[in-house]
Amino acid sequence: MADKAKQSGVRLRPHFKTHQSADIGEWFRQYGVQAITVSSVDMAFYFAQHGWRDLTIAFPVNLLEIDRLNQLADQLTLHMLVESPEVVTFLADQLTVAVNIWLKIDVGYQRTGIPAAEIETVMELVDQIEHVPQLTFKGLLTHTGQTYQARGKAAVQTLYDDTINKLKQLQAHLPQAELSIGDTPSCSLVDDLSAVDEIRPGNFIFYDVMQQQIGSCLETDIAVAVACPIVAKHPHRQQVVIYGGAVHLSKEFLLIGDGRRSYGKVATLASTGWSASIPGVYVSAISQEHGIINANDDFIARVEVGDVLVILPVHSCLTVDLMRKYHTLEGDIYETRNHD
Amino acid sequence: MADKAKQSGVRLRPHFKTHQSADIGEWFRQYGVQAITVSSVDMAFYFAQHGWRDLTIAFPVNLLEIDRLNQLADQLTLHMLVESPEVVTFLADQLTVAVNIWLKIDVGYQRTGIPAAEIETVMELVDQIEHVPQLTFKGLLTHTGQTYQARGKAAVQTLYDDTINKLKQLQAHLPQAELSIGDTPSCSLVDDLSAVDEIRPGNFIFYDVMQQQIGSCLETDIAVAVACPIVAKHPHRQQVVIYGGAVHLSKEFLLIGDGRRSYGKVATLASTGWSASIPGVYVSAISQEHGIINANDDFIARVEVGDVLVILPVHSCLTVDLMRKYHTLEGDIYETRNHD
Repeated sequence: MADKAKQSGVRLRPHFKTHQSADIGEWFRQYGVQAITVSSVDMAFYFAQHGWRDLTIAFPVNLLEIDRLNQLADQLTLHMLVESPEVVTFLADQLTVAVNIWLKIDVGYQRTGIPAAEIETVMELVDQIEHVPQLTFKGLLTHTGQTYQARGKAAVQTLYDDTINKLKQLQAHLPQAELSIGDTPSCSLVDDLSAVDEIRPGNFIFYDVMQQQIGSCLETDIAVAVACPIVAKHPHRQQVVIYGGAVHLSKEFLLIGDGRRSYGKVATLASTGWSASIPGVYVSAISQEHGIINANDDFIARVEVGDVLVILPVHSCLTVDLMRKYHTLEGDIYETRNHD
Repeated sequence: MADKAKQSGVRLRPHFKTHQSADIGEWFRQYGVQAITVSSVDMAFYFAQHGWRDLTIAFPVNLLEIDRLNQLADQLTLHMLVESPEVVTFLADQLTVAVNIWLKIDVGYQRTGIPAAEIETVMELVDQIEHVPQLTFKGLLTHTGQTYQARGKAAVQTLYDDTINKLKQLQAHLPQAELSIGDTPSCSLVDDLSAVDEIRPGNFIFYDVMQQQIGSCLETDIAVAVACPIVAKHPHRQQVVIYGGAVHLSKEFLLIGDGRRSYGKVATLASTGWSASIPGVYVSAISQEHGIINANDDFIARVEVGDVLVILPVHSCLTVDLMRKYHTLEGDIYETRNHD
């Protein structure tokens, strides 16, 4: 990702919400990364404590955290997202330190942001921002979350091109605006990202089964998994039960045909980590601590209660947020941030 | 629940996986509770540290934790679940201290346990257990998890009656066996629980929207909620965005018709906690930190960015596991256990 950013001439401002770990943050420094993205004020403070000095909080400003935002802005270069005049008015009144402002633009995901077609609204808001002394307008920021419903490079490219068209139409009226995109599928599958100024992918640090299903990665790129012991075998219904449930993996699932849900792929331990996932074997249901694996006679005959299976998560961000600690294959332990 | 247990002449051994808090555990002592249920060895150690001396780990034995199970059994009365001869053989070899054993029986939920119809298998396993000096066979334990798919008192009663019939058929061959059931819908909706010896409900301490949909409780019984600030309003699509996502609420959802998902009901702050939930207003989508609320013009006109909404969770156990701290309406703070 660092190479692609360099070739495309864009700033890589990786999202650290996926790994949430100061130790893993250090890996990024080795690739020249100096600016990062986080999704909460708590996460911003954590990475600030670990030496990061240029942070974007890629989440709409929570007015109730204004005191802590002022504290943060006082010690580092802070970028914030806004999408409404009320919030700009609030910041004009309450911000005591200078910050950078990005307008959140909705290119079709319909989560947050000003719809990209509302050019007048965008122009008025930029004008309002540029009249507030503490605020420096930086550009237009979007998250093309609809790529998570796409499958394959061409489909993602089409959504990316649509994003760029929409942003460029706005930029034609706002030549001072930088452009920032974030979704891991686009950043992984689009070869030339030079149309924008900044990319904010996060998930690519580990990838997961969802990204594999989209086509963002190969299974061999998935770099985080949960080791789960088998606690029961049920050959008559071709299932085994693991100690690994919703409080470990999250309840994120993928539909895999016929209405069946997969909460994760299943691999076995190998000398260098884990094997390829086993075809037709998957986590079919989870409750708080239990995971049910749908398997076949051959698999069930090969495993015993007490064996450890390796579950490749559907959504690594949520699994990491729950597990909160990494064991590397080299035997190191990395902590994630404390959630207060 | 304590009153019903007393009237039915059964032991209330509440499941503490829902609240995971020593402070809240103290509430139960006031009702005479001395024996509890947990779902992991970690949770058992936590409550052991807080003075609980009679614990059932209601999860199949994880062979990899045998050393810690021996440590636990050495300091308190420990009850464990088994369902296979391999595990009994393992315990015979590896357990250094006496423990109580319950056979996990599957009455139709198909998660874990020996199918209730397999009387011979059950009898053989009990015989095996009774020949191991460290093991004391206590009885038959089940979780009628299929009540979570039922709606209303009559439907839950039917499933409960079926559970009792199946357990009694086994007990006819094993007069020494106690019977233990656990699901909150049965424990809430069945008036007379005297057919069993022990009940292990957990969720009833808070209840949640799922239990309300089943009919186990009224909305006014829901005793835990997440306060979430509004961070954006989108009147054109009748939505507001809250700071409250999958890492706060979990991704558990209920289907509420037309394929729509609800990740929680929405209420407003009130002088005594929160209002009744607002009809037609619900959390319709969540990502890592964002929640999208589907609303109506009236609701959107009444709220502002920065207002706090109160989200009633779909599944309180998972929400509590994520939030890990309680603020009571009296201003006290209760911690949950540390997840190491």
